[in-house]
Amino acid sequence: MSSAEFDPRPIGVFDSGIGGITVLKEVIRQFPNENFIYLGDTARLPYGSKSAETVRQYTVQNMKFLVSRDVKAIIVACNTASTQVFETEYEGRPIYNVIDPGSKLAAETTKNNKIAVLATRGTVAAGSYPKKIKLFKPDAEVISRACPLFVPFAEEGLHDDPLTNLVAYRYLQDLKQMDVDTVVLGCTHYPLLKTAIQRVFGNYVHLIDSGEAVAAQVQNDFDQFKILPNAPTTTPSLIVSLTDQSQHFENLTSTLLSSVSSRKIHFETVSVT
Amino acid sequence: MSSAEFDPRPIGVFDSGIGGITVLKEVIRQFPNENFIYLGDTARLPYGSKSAETVRQYTVQNMKFLVSRDVKAIIVACNTASTQVFETEYEGRPIYNVIDPGSKLAAETTKNNKIAVLATRGTVAAGSYPKKIKLFKPDAEVISRACPLFVPFAEEGLHDDPLTNLVAYRYLQDLKQMDVDTVVLGCTHYPLLKTAIQRVFGNYVHLIDSGEAVAAQVQNDFDQFKILPNAPTTTPSLIVSLTDQSQHFENLTSTLLSSVSSRKIHFETVSVT
Repeated sequence: MSSAEFDPRPIGVFDSGIGGITVLKEVIRQFPNENFIYLGDTARLPYGSKSAETVRQYTVQNMKFLVSRDVKAIIVACNTASTQVFETEYEGRPIYNVIDPGSKLAAETTKNNKIAVLATRGTVAAGSYPKKIKLFKPDAEVISRACPLFVPFAEEGLHDDPLTNLVAYRYLQDLKQMDVDTVVLGCTHYPLLKTAIQRVFGNYVHLIDSGEAVAAQVQNDFDQFKILPNAPTTTPSLIVSLTDQSQHFENLTSTLLSSVSSRKIHFETVSVT
Repeated sequence: MSSAEFDPRPIGVFDSGIGGITVLKEVIRQFPNENFIYLGDTARLPYGSKSAETVRQYTVQNMKFLVSRDVKAIIVACNTASTQVFETEYEGRPIYNVIDPGSKLAAETTKNNKIAVLATRGTVAAGSYPKKIKLFKPDAEVISRACPLFVPFAEEGLHDDPLTNLVAYRYLQDLKQMDVDTVVLGCTHYPLLKTAIQRVFGNYVHLIDSGEAVAAQVQNDFDQFKILPNAPTTTPSLIVSLTDQSQHFENLTSTLLSSVSSRKIHFETVSVT
């Protein structure tokens, strides 16, 4: 490869808070050579209970911020924000939302055509998953379920806890009885609660993690040279930009990423408004 | 009374979300003749997990908004915001925070000098309650406890639910064993979970509700003519201004207020930035 075939610019990833870290973790694991900048809009989190107009406004401000930091691509690591992203590019940068690849993977995975989508109230109201899944599999039966307490449980770090199990049973028990074989974790916080969710449905039900699905799509665009890789480096960077400084968030982020990367995280507080 | 002794301007009340409605409910009950405007900063809720600097910035924007609507007084119906209000007046209007009257009432109520303060992470970190309570009762022992899941449970309407009981036991069981006789509900959401909280502590422990405490302070200022009452009216107004439109919030507000007032609520969406 000549140097023109490399692009050292970072990949930008954003979410309202900690949820998008599950996506970041997956793309760092798959693209260990890339530089990343992660924006957590912690001053305004959560997004899932807010209106479409407000979420759209926040999403555009976040994309503008990432462009100002000269990213080569933008990953919208938040399902609620993804429902309000109608572009495939923003100022020349490709945008990856988490709903399209998650929908495709769910449609490919189901055998009995019964799919459940677990998401925030905002994502359920937008109806993006049923619409997208049916594009890939028109005869699929898609049942959506808002699970608004999952986000605070994930943010509080109650990832494997008896209380989390009880909340999961409350939300999901009847879906289990409807015999779904594929469950979309339609909020990037939810993979943090995978153990509790899997416990309700049992091991034969497939959980679809948007992080893995979006990483596969980015790989595809690298393969097709739509985005160019970073030159080989031993010191890939990771900047975590937060709109509100929070020690709790910084600790949780460092813990979550420790299993995939030893790169040093540079935390900073920024304004996007 | 001559007309100069009346002041028709509304009393302004604000919170990040639904919690402040418990304070609004109390002041409407006690001052049924007054006009009110309630600001819920639902586009940026919750405040309790955000940094002091961010909460201060939001608080000032909220006060500016209420002044632009020509209120005669401002009630900061949010404990986390109250920790960042250092003024007693804002542009000539008296400010009532919920921490001062709650602290005074707790100090007056305790017999054994053991007081627990339940609050958000932000309010606990600010340390305002222990400091204020000790002003009134220097030998009081004050134990603070952050209960971050109480706000989402209250916002979700799980006010009397087995799950709420379990979360309350998790947070409070050891405080009960420490033999506190007075418990400050140091977040305006928490009175919504009063049943569950009282169940953990038992009926002999006094719960201090900031709404009642702040209403008593406003009454005191009416008595001393620091603020003047509205002229007698049969149609007092109530405007609820939200920074993010939410049907869920509007329904919850109407339900919560139905027991104290039949006045018509005018909902509107506003920007405070």
